[in-house]
Amino acid sequence: MKIKCADFLAKEGKKCKLSKFPTAYTGKTLDKDAGEKLLEKSKQQLAEMQDILYAHDEYRVLVVLQAMDAAGKDSAIKHIMSGMNPSGVKVANFKVPNSTELDHDYFWRHYKELPGRGEIGIFNRSHYENVLVTRVHPEYILNEKIPGIDSVKDITPEFWEKRMDQIRRFEKNLAENGTVIIKIFLHVSKDEQKKRFLERIEDPSKNWKFSFGDLKERALWEEYQSAYEAAITATSTSFAPWYIVPADDKWFTRLAIAEILGDQFKKLKLTYPEVSAETKAELEKAKAMLLNE
Amino acid sequence: MKIKCADFLAKEGKKCKLSKFPTAYTGKTLDKDAGEKLLEKSKQQLAEMQDILYAHDEYRVLVVLQAMDAAGKDSAIKHIMSGMNPSGVKVANFKVPNSTELDHDYFWRHYKELPGRGEIGIFNRSHYENVLVTRVHPEYILNEKIPGIDSVKDITPEFWEKRMDQIRRFEKNLAENGTVIIKIFLHVSKDEQKKRFLERIEDPSKNWKFSFGDLKERALWEEYQSAYEAAITATSTSFAPWYIVPADDKWFTRLAIAEILGDQFKKLKLTYPEVSAETKAELEKAKAMLLNE
Repeated sequence: MKIKCADFLAKEGKKCKLSKFPTAYTGKTLDKDAGEKLLEKSKQQLAEMQDILYAHDEYRVLVVLQAMDAAGKDSAIKHIMSGMNPSGVKVANFKVPNSTELDHDYFWRHYKELPGRGEIGIFNRSHYENVLVTRVHPEYILNEKIPGIDSVKDITPEFWEKRMDQIRRFEKNLAENGTVIIKIFLHVSKDEQKKRFLERIEDPSKNWKFSFGDLKERALWEEYQSAYEAAITATSTSFAPWYIVPADDKWFTRLAIAEILGDQFKKLKLTYPEVSAETKAELEKAKAMLLNE
Repeated sequence: MKIKCADFLAKEGKKCKLSKFPTAYTGKTLDKDAGEKLLEKSKQQLAEMQDILYAHDEYRVLVVLQAMDAAGKDSAIKHIMSGMNPSGVKVANFKVPNSTELDHDYFWRHYKELPGRGEIGIFNRSHYENVLVTRVHPEYILNEKIPGIDSVKDITPEFWEKRMDQIRRFEKNLAENGTVIIKIFLHVSKDEQKKRFLERIEDPSKNWKFSFGDLKERALWEEYQSAYEAAITATSTSFAPWYIVPADDKWFTRLAIAEILGDQFKKLKLTYPEVSAETKAELEKAKAMLLNE
């Protein structure tokens, strides 16, 4: 393996500075071609691991993907998951919450979409939007009609600390009951976003991906980076770590995500369930019966 | 009000001894007739409060009902909630978890059924079964296939402590986001259960309520009482208090529950939303338009 996953890990308890993490591949041993070959291998391994995860039947895997616009979340999901058995992979795309969702606490719509045992669930955006887009636009919080939060003035630094506590509690409960949580931030540079936006504007087949409002959010780049830093600092834990993956080179992003997932899978040391002596004898008997038919 | 709700409160941080709480009405001022009259009044007040809860549109109310068999959960729900607007009340009955539910962490099926804003949700049995029936029958825990919990020997006192932590986290997250949690244990005596079981056996119209297995659980009476005491001790908090309500006299049980709910509602100090001067002017204008039609 030519990628060290630990390089991308946001260390627990350490203040996260995104500027300290690269947005592009900085190594020398890989290029796009070599990277794509490695990705193929990595994808095959992931597919095998998925099969074992399903047979082992003890863990759920939740992959949280967060990023600025055009960082490549959707294409990463498409490319990395394409080799997997779709019956065990469940992608949940979270957009602006609807009115039924806003009637409940902000975890509710995410809880419903959590993967079952043996499954891999991918959150394309996630419960983290509740401390990201809402932190940049605190007026959105008012839609939740939380008692005591009647105006933007009520949304204090303590409010956000409380919310980070809530997220840690939520994730700890999941982890303690067998959900492996892997959180990935696709770290794209402002320049690369500009390039990709221009492509979306110039290429008619990509026009649908762009909306004028994207520029409004781009103008809040620094605010978003700060919100990400605060969220990652508060919630990168041993039971639900954050990885900050360079996102300027799509080939590298995909490879890095596949390697991080593979690395986490390996740590679980899963094996196909061992068959008891009794079952083994039964299998032999069944074999004999079939052969004697 | 002739009932002091605080008498039934399990105090936070205090070891709960169920034998210290009465199973029957011990006061002198009330009898069945007087109690039923008070209940009617109490129900009317609850119906009004429900209307305000809905109009106020900030809080959700979750009522958790737990009890031994035949303590009167179902009939309490039927009698107390009958005066309410059913469009704002949602009863969730939790039985033995099915296979889809067991594929997820044990909170999942409960999370999905949580009430929305302005609603009253009643859990008839609840997430507490995961530290009650499972504590008496720890082998049920193995159905959850939690990593590291491979046999009953792995289910240590620490396991239960962890689970209590998980429940506190779950409830704290709900409370901090606007869900008022009221937990009620219907405290029935072993003698009264015997009487009610005999009724269910002798009265053909009640036969359907009895199953032979109920006696098997009755034989584990002390184990269940201990499990309840441990759960109530660990999870009666300021944000999600437990009330231990005498359940040998059905008329009193219903009255006590209605009073406890009313008491909690009152503490919220809800009012119909105030209308702004602007809206008031609009209302006047609308009135004039209608009258001049």
